[in-house]
Amino acid sequence: MPAGSSKLIDADVHNALASPCDLLPFLPAYWREEVKQRGLNLPHAGYISPVGVLRQDAVPDDGEGGPGSSPAFLIKDHMDRYNIDFAILTGSGVLTLSLLNDPDYANALASALNEWQAQTWLEYSPRFRGSIIINHSDPAAAAKEIRKWGPHPSIVQVLMASGSNRLFGQRFFHPIYEAAEEHGLPVAIHPGSEGSGTAPNVTPSGRPTRYMEWHNILPTNYMATINSLVCEGVFEKYPKLRFVAIEGGLAWLPHLMWRMDKNYKALRSSTPWLRKLPSEYIREHIYVTTQPIEEPSNPAHILQILEMIGAPHMVMFSSDYPHWDFDNPKMALPPLPKELKERILWRNAAQLYRLPVDEEATVAASR
Amino acid sequence: MPAGSSKLIDADVHNALASPCDLLPFLPAYWREEVKQRGLNLPHAGYISPVGVLRQDAVPDDGEGGPGSSPAFLIKDHMDRYNIDFAILTGSGVLTLSLLNDPDYANALASALNEWQAQTWLEYSPRFRGSIIINHSDPAAAAKEIRKWGPHPSIVQVLMASGSNRLFGQRFFHPIYEAAEEHGLPVAIHPGSEGSGTAPNVTPSGRPTRYMEWHNILPTNYMATINSLVCEGVFEKYPKLRFVAIEGGLAWLPHLMWRMDKNYKALRSSTPWLRKLPSEYIREHIYVTTQPIEEPSNPAHILQILEMIGAPHMVMFSSDYPHWDFDNPKMALPPLPKELKERILWRNAAQLYRLPVDEEATVAASR
Repeated sequence: MPAGSSKLIDADVHNALASPCDLLPFLPAYWREEVKQRGLNLPHAGYISPVGVLRQDAVPDDGEGGPGSSPAFLIKDHMDRYNIDFAILTGSGVLTLSLLNDPDYANALASALNEWQAQTWLEYSPRFRGSIIINHSDPAAAAKEIRKWGPHPSIVQVLMASGSNRLFGQRFFHPIYEAAEEHGLPVAIHPGSEGSGTAPNVTPSGRPTRYMEWHNILPTNYMATINSLVCEGVFEKYPKLRFVAIEGGLAWLPHLMWRMDKNYKALRSSTPWLRKLPSEYIREHIYVTTQPIEEPSNPAHILQILEMIGAPHMVMFSSDYPHWDFDNPKMALPPLPKELKERILWRNAAQLYRLPVDEEATVAASR
Repeated sequence: MPAGSSKLIDADVHNALASPCDLLPFLPAYWREEVKQRGLNLPHAGYISPVGVLRQDAVPDDGEGGPGSSPAFLIKDHMDRYNIDFAILTGSGVLTLSLLNDPDYANALASALNEWQAQTWLEYSPRFRGSIIINHSDPAAAAKEIRKWGPHPSIVQVLMASGSNRLFGQRFFHPIYEAAEEHGLPVAIHPGSEGSGTAPNVTPSGRPTRYMEWHNILPTNYMATINSLVCEGVFEKYPKLRFVAIEGGLAWLPHLMWRMDKNYKALRSSTPWLRKLPSEYIREHIYVTTQPIEEPSNPAHILQILEMIGAPHMVMFSSDYPHWDFDNPKMALPPLPKELKERILWRNAAQLYRLPVDEEATVAASR
């Protein structure tokens, strides 16, 4: 096998709490009692997947905890099976903390999760790279959390719920971007919280009826988010900021880029802070992960979509392990030119997250 | 010029009231007094276009009324200039009546607009074809209005605001589809009401800040609408129903079709009423109009998108006259194969709306 061809970075791996009790050592007394009595009690949008959310075959060997809760089993069952160099950890079912009514509880949970991640996962193996989970409803507290964890050598990004009742380009959120840029960390969003808690909307016309309908339409929130970030000038204000749209697919990007560019040509007088076409900001600042990549019956169509997007550095492979719609790295991608495939499978993530995967010695040492 | 090559149907032409007073003869006494004192007083989302919404060069010759308000001038300035056989009338700035708090006022306005359209436009020329404007917030009243106007020889569709606080697939709206199907009329939505009145949301994450940002993101509501119509089984319940998504572009369709199909394969147990892939319902039941068609710098990309959609009958030319983002029928479309171009410029609309444009004699007589 040629050198480099077997490298792989997985940009969306869900590491789970085995039990809410795992957080108790990291919570202040008041919230510790709450969690003891009521569990995490996080908001939920109320859409139930008919196939469940977690792969039942991903339950750890010893039967303790649920899928994704054991570092050793996750490495064995997933990373070693597919020869994955690094897994970017994204937590599991906890991001709706940003949609809690009480920002103090949300902040306490985020802090506890970050401590738990560092002790349970990041110390376990350097192949795990962590996301700082933040409560986006309290940007000042979120910025503090980012500055606390930013210097940690295994931390590679900031992660927050994509569900929100405010669009992420708005000034309210800028302290988050300021802190992230300061530490050279991308800010990532992950879907699933749309319609939960303080984010009651799921579409511009209200709430879908069932899980499939809800899941089908989640990428429209990503379109709205990217539109807001660009139009509000976030990437002029924070020129080094990168933004990762995890688990939303990518075939909606050509439409969004073209429509934004067309409108910008006619309407740009209202956004004088923008200095280039919206699509140029998108190509420079937005990253997407592959799972669940769209699967047209003609796989050449995905290649055409990638050509329309015109930014081969934007796309990063992800498996979404251990979720129901997991993508097998050996099967998920359509036939792609070698250089593009290499970029998607590891090079783009290695560059964005500054991972030492392209130095053979370092990778070997990290195993 | 070869026979047939110069035919043209414009599927989105905005015929305007010269004044709210035009409606007074058609309103019941109570609402007549209201309109006299306060004008139409329709809800507005509060986003102001920096270039205005109407083309100032489309003000009628005599200076009376605004752009689109004179049947004679609209024929001269638009239809004769571009040799347009038929214009599908879609009203102007009135669809937000569906987002009024008071359904009685909305019903009265819709009825008055339909009377005004018949007398002022449909009687003026058979080249005008009308849309029954309905208040979608009172489906029983809307169905009555559809049954009243359905038999009119120049009526070709039902038209409603795309803005809503409920998704259009839900049972609440089914009386509208029942009446439309009964009369063989497509149901059309037109954007611009998103965020107005009783439809407070514009995105899953709240309201955009400015007009451009709002306008950029409107097609996501079309995605949510089509997703809802398909998932709720509207096209199984009303198999002859056709649905027209006016003025929303089309390059978002491949993503939506692929994502819906992929999810359906895994999750279809929750929608047992569906009997084929979501994309098949879309290809069979959804129509879109071209303006504002996306404009990639490489025009071949639009042809690729049309191939991905794989339904050459779905797309109908529209100009959006006299709105600011009007598309000139001679310039708006990228280079297309002859048969596809003919379909888009007139054949698809002629079939959907049953217009006699392919019989030379009838067209000549109608002029």
